[in-house]
Amino acid sequence: MNEVLQVIRQHRSIRKFKNIPLTGEQIEAIVDAAQMAPTSAHLQPFSMIGITDRELRKKIAVHSNNPWIEECGYFYIFCTDLHRLMLAANPDQQEKVSSNLGYSYFYQTAVLSAALALQNANLAAESMGLGAVIIGGINEALPALDEWLDLPDFVIPLAGLAVGVPDEFPEQKPRLPRSAVFFENQYNRDLKSQVEQYDREVEEYYSARTNNKRKVSWSGKFISMLEKDLPLSGYTEYVKSKGFDLK
Amino acid sequence: MNEVLQVIRQHRSIRKFKNIPLTGEQIEAIVDAAQMAPTSAHLQPFSMIGITDRELRKKIAVHSNNPWIEECGYFYIFCTDLHRLMLAANPDQQEKVSSNLGYSYFYQTAVLSAALALQNANLAAESMGLGAVIIGGINEALPALDEWLDLPDFVIPLAGLAVGVPDEFPEQKPRLPRSAVFFENQYNRDLKSQVEQYDREVEEYYSARTNNKRKVSWSGKFISMLEKDLPLSGYTEYVKSKGFDLK
Repeated sequence: MNEVLQVIRQHRSIRKFKNIPLTGEQIEAIVDAAQMAPTSAHLQPFSMIGITDRELRKKIAVHSNNPWIEECGYFYIFCTDLHRLMLAANPDQQEKVSSNLGYSYFYQTAVLSAALALQNANLAAESMGLGAVIIGGINEALPALDEWLDLPDFVIPLAGLAVGVPDEFPEQKPRLPRSAVFFENQYNRDLKSQVEQYDREVEEYYSARTNNKRKVSWSGKFISMLEKDLPLSGYTEYVKSKGFDLK
Repeated sequence: MNEVLQVIRQHRSIRKFKNIPLTGEQIEAIVDAAQMAPTSAHLQPFSMIGITDRELRKKIAVHSNNPWIEECGYFYIFCTDLHRLMLAANPDQQEKVSSNLGYSYFYQTAVLSAALALQNANLAAESMGLGAVIIGGINEALPALDEWLDLPDFVIPLAGLAVGVPDEFPEQKPRLPRSAVFFENQYNRDLKSQVEQYDREVEEYYSARTNNKRKVSWSGKFISMLEKDLPLSGYTEYVKSKGFDLK
């Protein structure tokens, strides 16, 4: 198995880091890797913000309830970014351009592209012997985070990437069986028994693992959240306030 | 430079393939790599559909105007997929679960996760000496594509991945300068001159490259599209029809 497949197969999210900052070379190698990801029509609709200010790191960690944001060796925030197109538009084009960028299609394109770049960055870090974790929960620090970073319209912080020298080696979580995620020619709707079997496997994993033992199944964790009223309309309002009106 | 960084740095999208199908091992190694990508809370909200039926491949190629879908060695379609949670919900939970999954937040999460998996797959292919291209344009085959693949609610085809033995070695496109996409602590809104300089660089690239020479700048290509009325509201209607009401 080649080195790329090995790094991909050995992936585990790292949330405990040694107190060692990244070198300048490491920081830039990760950025360069992100920039090499393919993007739709070469649009490159993403940006990265490195958070080096200690106070700012602390505020983001506290507001998003992710202590490893403060403890890692370097912290990146990956954003959708279509702002550069707004800069390129003439004053008489801006209203139309801005209105068109509001379509959900461009939002989806920007999220997808930023994520391709993010995974390149993640693997680049892992390939250099570093550990990393992608933190979707930075949105819990919104809308304050938006202000702290001074993000213009069409720039949304999607996920953080905390990188550092790993100080743990967690077990790998079992994945859904291949036959429940990979189909041939047509979707297979008959997956209920496979999901139930996977639920039992995940329950065993959680009750057997070394740290943070608990009794919970895969779908059980999500369904118990999703059967309640969720306060998520505010997130959509935020996305719309940034110009992505999702029309 | 390690092998992972090398594969990432050498990336180019391949759109010309030798007439050689992928082996079963290659097909599965790519799926396994996709499944190892991290996902938010281990949700794994994506699926892959391999298109092996020649007639179906041809229909998708024609409807999305991407001939390499037919000519590649193997063709995957990556989808958002929250359908498995619907299967796990009891009948009396389904209405609430379905309503909650409609939030734009879960749509964003699913797109992001599917894209992380997609980039793992892309790099896995490249690491094995194969070439690949991500095809966002499969949405041009919607809504017919949705029917052909029999996709349930919350399953949306996001992008195709055409893989095969490369029969071309295209030049690499210049990226935006690092300083225009990577910032420290705060977004830098003063990017207009950098975008203009990049526009000139891209113009030179297009007029100098071996194949498909043309005179167009980076932002010019997008602005000339975005200053017109775009027929993209239908895409949002499609996304909403799949349960993602983006509320």
